[in-house]
Amino acid sequence: MTNPTPPDIVRCAYLELVVTDLAASRRFYVDVLGLTVTAEDDTHVYLRTLEEFIHHNLVLRQGPVAAAAALAFRVRTPEDVDRAEEYFTALGCRTERRQEGFVRGIGDAVRVVDPLGFPYEFFHHVEHVDRLAWRYDLYTPGALVRLDHFNQVTPDVPRGRDYLEGLGFRVTEDIRDADGVTYAAWLHRKDTVHDTALTGGDGPRLHHIAFSTHEKHNIIAICDMLGALRMSDVIERGPGRHGVSNAFYLYIRDPDGHRVEIYTQDYYTGDPDNPVVTWDVHDNQRRDWWGNPVVPSWYTEASPVLDLDGNPQPVAHRDEPSELAVTIGADGFSYTREGDAEKGFKLGSQL
Amino acid sequence: MTNPTPPDIVRCAYLELVVTDLAASRRFYVDVLGLTVTAEDDTHVYLRTLEEFIHHNLVLRQGPVAAAAALAFRVRTPEDVDRAEEYFTALGCRTERRQEGFVRGIGDAVRVVDPLGFPYEFFHHVEHVDRLAWRYDLYTPGALVRLDHFNQVTPDVPRGRDYLEGLGFRVTEDIRDADGVTYAAWLHRKDTVHDTALTGGDGPRLHHIAFSTHEKHNIIAICDMLGALRMSDVIERGPGRHGVSNAFYLYIRDPDGHRVEIYTQDYYTGDPDNPVVTWDVHDNQRRDWWGNPVVPSWYTEASPVLDLDGNPQPVAHRDEPSELAVTIGADGFSYTREGDAEKGFKLGSQL
Amino acid sequence: MTNPTPPDIVRCAYLELVVTDLAASRRFYVDVLGLTVTAEDDTHVYLRTLEEFIHHNLVLRQGPVAAAAALAFRVRTPEDVDRAEEYFTALGCRTERRQEGFVRGIGDAVRVVDPLGFPYEFFHHVEHVDRLAWRYDLYTPGALVRLDHFNQVTPDVPRGRDYLEGLGFRVTEDIRDADGVTYAAWLHRKDTVHDTALTGGDGPRLHHIAFSTHEKHNIIAICDMLGALRMSDVIERGPGRHGVSNAFYLYIRDPDGHRVEIYTQDYYTGDPDNPVVTWDVHDNQRRDWWGNPVVPSWYTEASPVLDLDGNPQPVAHRDEPSELAVTIGADGFSYTREGDAEKGFKLGSQL
Amino acid sequence: MTNPTPPDIVRCAYLELVVTDLAASRRFYVDVLGLTVTAEDDTHVYLRTLEEFIHHNLVLRQGPVAAAAALAFRVRTPEDVDRAEEYFTALGCRTERRQEGFVRGIGDAVRVVDPLGFPYEFFHHVEHVDRLAWRYDLYTPGALVRLDHFNQVTPDVPRGRDYLEGLGFRVTEDIRDADGVTYAAWLHRKDTVHDTALTGGDGPRLHHIAFSTHEKHNIIAICDMLGALRMSDVIERGPGRHGVSNAFYLYIRDPDGHRVEIYTQDYYTGDPDNPVVTWDVHDNQRRDWWGNPVVPSWYTEASPVLDLDGNPQPVAHRDEPSELAVTIGADGFSYTREGDAEKGFKLGSQL
Repeated sequence: MTNPTPPDIVRCAYLELVVTDLAASRRFYVDVLGLTVTAEDDTHVYLRTLEEFIHHNLVLRQGPVAAAAALAFRVRTPEDVDRAEEYFTALGCRTERRQEGFVRGIGDAVRVVDPLGFPYEFFHHVEHVDRLAWRYDLYTPGALVRLDHFNQVTPDVPRGRDYLEGLGFRVTEDIRDADGVTYAAWLHRKDTVHDTALTGGDGPRLHHIAFSTHEKHNIIAICDMLGALRMSDVIERGPGRHGVSNAFYLYIRDPDGHRVEIYTQDYYTGDPDNPVVTWDVHDNQRRDWWGNPVVPSWYTEASPVLDLDGNPQPVAHRDEPSELAVTIGADGFSYTREGDAEKGFKLGSQL
Repeated sequence: MTNPTPPDIVRCAYLELVVTDLAASRRFYVDVLGLTVTAEDDTHVYLRTLEEFIHHNLVLRQGPVAAAAALAFRVRTPEDVDRAEEYFTALGCRTERRQEGFVRGIGDAVRVVDPLGFPYEFFHHVEHVDRLAWRYDLYTPGALVRLDHFNQVTPDVPRGRDYLEGLGFRVTEDIRDADGVTYAAWLHRKDTVHDTALTGGDGPRLHHIAFSTHEKHNIIAICDMLGALRMSDVIERGPGRHGVSNAFYLYIRDPDGHRVEIYTQDYYTGDPDNPVVTWDVHDNQRRDWWGNPVVPSWYTEASPVLDLDGNPQPVAHRDEPSELAVTIGADGFSYTREGDAEKGFKLGSQL
Repeated sequence: MTNPTPPDIVRCAYLELVVTDLAASRRFYVDVLGLTVTAEDDTHVYLRTLEEFIHHNLVLRQGPVAAAAALAFRVRTPEDVDRAEEYFTALGCRTERRQEGFVRGIGDAVRVVDPLGFPYEFFHHVEHVDRLAWRYDLYTPGALVRLDHFNQVTPDVPRGRDYLEGLGFRVTEDIRDADGVTYAAWLHRKDTVHDTALTGGDGPRLHHIAFSTHEKHNIIAICDMLGALRMSDVIERGPGRHGVSNAFYLYIRDPDGHRVEIYTQDYYTGDPDNPVVTWDVHDNQRRDWWGNPVVPSWYTEASPVLDLDGNPQPVAHRDEPSELAVTIGADGFSYTREGDAEKGFKLGSQL
Repeated sequence: MTNPTPPDIVRCAYLELVVTDLAASRRFYVDVLGLTVTAEDDTHVYLRTLEEFIHHNLVLRQGPVAAAAALAFRVRTPEDVDRAEEYFTALGCRTERRQEGFVRGIGDAVRVVDPLGFPYEFFHHVEHVDRLAWRYDLYTPGALVRLDHFNQVTPDVPRGRDYLEGLGFRVTEDIRDADGVTYAAWLHRKDTVHDTALTGGDGPRLHHIAFSTHEKHNIIAICDMLGALRMSDVIERGPGRHGVSNAFYLYIRDPDGHRVEIYTQDYYTGDPDNPVVTWDVHDNQRRDWWGNPVVPSWYTEASPVLDLDGNPQPVAHRDEPSELAVTIGADGFSYTREGDAEKGFKLGSQL
């Protein structure tokens, strides 16, 4: 028996996020980060970026446990929703189809618990809203213009990669070691470095959602504003330049601890033979091109994900070495220049 | 009889440009603009942008008449070169296939004279070279990182649009008037506003080739450098913000008068129902969002294109009204605010 | 008899501007440009920039005729107000002293009609207000952070220069021709290129007031926002890079036609032997380093200034050649490269 | 007996730095950082920034021990060199006067060992060189345009502050605690936040020299380039936004460990009553507005300074609490929001 044809996925499209204090989360995403409210009611806020024309990129839903309820991807045609349903059914995954959509603004959609335990949604029909790209009167100094990607924590990265490649994703970059361990992989559908990435760790958990800005100063402006609001402690890591993806980045944490990346300027990946970049896990510039340390929480903390009944998925332990352990601490080793005799930690900086 | 399947075009990939003084052109593109030399010989220079991994984005070829010899597109598979050949043969176009490629670094390719009279090339096989994206030691203040698009002058824009849509391109934006005249259209394959555009005018001629920078200050840095080199008279138009595409832009002219655009920050267009934006030709912000005037040369001057024997294509006159005529001058009318009684020219500025 | 000692002027500090529609002007300066309201009443709005700690940089006053009522400079000590009064009295100028100040927030001050016919004010005592430099939550994409300078139109630039040098200003740059005509001069007290400049033309009139931003993209953001508000027709000239001052600039016009420059990144001038830069009036990069044309209105239009009774000062004609006439038009000549045979106008651009 | 009149200091002007491997240091400052070589010989390299018109801002001198040989300030008149000599003689300091200057390009100068043990130089006469401000063809992405300030380590900050105020400097900002301990102070002559600063610690030692860039992206470009050169381990701290000074910053270490700051966008301080900003040492945003940790080396390491015979000055221990100790570690306490019950360390980040 042949595998069913996977759906033709266009891009990552939106995240449904359960938050425990909707008002606090609304303040964070709307008043502080400046996302645009497309619609809202007592228990939901539907948010989009300035260049978006579909109904939303982020749904905040009031709930008892902070978690990611769905990572939603847009597919090319209405029939691709059928294909998604068939594909995951054939994989033995639980699926749920709703012609009317799971959330406001979205039509016929299927949600699945994928082989890695993540709640994925696939939809095509969506309500169009104004693309605010030209509305510079609405821009803030740190204006978020696009949803860029998701990042998922999973124990077995090669297994996850195989699954996502089967689903039509292609790898652009990964982090490995000489023993064949894969620590992370980045996979795309649209012409960027990723629509989602797999980070090795206890999972399934959502590592972060990432929004794009136009320029680097926009990210700095967000940091400056967080300082002015005396909220600098929501800055977890960065700003910095990624080695992987070559993008300029910042990681912050929302009121529930959900991680948000602000991201700009990766590169075009749309060619069929786009070269894959493999980074050595010991290369101290792989995650921060400037060699600035990755804080432990960035490796260890992540958001639970829900199953289709809204219950948190159990988390499986990663058996392979953790990136944190092999690069930091007593047994760790990272280098700035491969082959250098000297230990490559930054001057007087890292633990 | 059904039409043959068009090739699956990935993106605009490179331009072959005939220049009359190779040394002067090399100085312009390499020493001034900072493009990277992949290879060169006595009569050719092969140039690429910093994020490119295929052999080149621009070939400068010494020749007797300044002209564009080929607008080359990459296709998804080797078989798509066959499809391109069949497609244009079925259209009654002259085609030429070369397994060894027409230029260095490119393999099996077909060149055609398309229905609009332009020399198009389609290829898949290409020599990979280092993607220099991470080589910040090579960046200049005005670093060009990608080839973004071509822009072609043709008398009948709707006819050209139909042809390109048949070939698989999709329109993102256009300029029209209330009488149904189309003045220009933008069409894409990759996830940006365009891989090529059609500008209404006497044609076939090449209006310009466009390279991307990361940020707006990179474009300003190019202007500043041209001033320092006492070459400011190569700046033809801009810098400015486009209405169409929402990108930040600059137009300069090379030693032969070939027009080069420097371009940054348009928006994602990869969704199948990406909204088309139609601009009124009388909207004074359509070509420059700040209402700064478009210089007449920008409308009237363009580069000849060659047929497959290397002879300049004859140029057909555009019969429909010209955008220059309907927006500037005695009979012209443009507005800043639609319906405004006052004539919308900028304060004391435009002719 | 020796001349009295001039006051020790610290910097240009604020402009009192008469506007004919206070609500419209408030919208322009506050809602659009984002200046901060320190105080206001039915007939006045007191505005400051984000890094300012004195009460205001701009006073908008409702009045019958759009004009500049006072160009105010801060002096180092309270006694310098006395010195200013004595200095201008000795020059035979009309002066008026008010211990309580002429406007809210300012203490003891003297206003004079100076030898060029301009209403100058000198004050030391001023109400301190919060310096909002760290309040990034208040920043807009085009945040104005400092008052930079005034620019005055006067018929006889060398006479004006002598007067201002006597008052303690020092020239940093000027524009001349080979016949000894001076077209403009820039003079400073603080460590920047100017606190005020003299532009040759019919005067006394105020050419413009200039505010600083931190970076070039802030100026671009103002243009983008004006486009979004369909106010692009208030953009008179730019954005561009000045030759003189090396600053990045934009000129816009307020609802009364008062000209405002947005300005960033000139250079340090505080050394006693700071080199004076003299530009040839025919150098096409002197006013725009990229050779972009200066619109005629920029040369010919300016704001009336008031005498101490609030009446518009009569305007004297400039007898020397105008910069507009010698650089543009039938008799005009400008070059990009000195000595070039070819006429240096930009490609197909200027009249 | 009255104190002698202090010299009228214009600004910090240059640093003479002893390096142990001149070729390596030249590579760092010229090939990597892009400073301009005004002159050089076998044992000296004279370097300047792009907007500088005096002979140099930095002298690299080959020597046996890495150290700072002189912190040189420009004075307003030739007579101010006399005043400097008299002033320090009256203070009981050792002075040395050389009519021909101590280094190339500088004329009559006096060097002193000041009351804090630092080698200060005062000069007026200097060789003018080309101000390269308009030479955008020479700019790099991380172009350094001005010398901004020095920073000195001294055990007793209040004592140092009194001495510098006597010399004519004025304090703009400082860091204190509720017990009256002063941890650092910033003092200026030119219109910026500082020409020099005092950092509490074992001294006299030179903490760093700081150069300015125009925009924040220039600093990011330096980091990106250091990554590309696999020199990211010279990045010690940042980039970040200072609380004190409000400037955007980066600290790097040269081949001898001398610390260099890259700095941009502090504020105007030229008014006589410029408000002093006092920061609480426990405010976690005082040194980095985003609350990012200060690495211990930044507090503890610094360059020796030389006496007038070229011997390293003995270093005296700071008896008061160190800023490192009171903010980090077992006894440390910092807050993001004053009065917050929770410990204000950043999420999972600082030791």
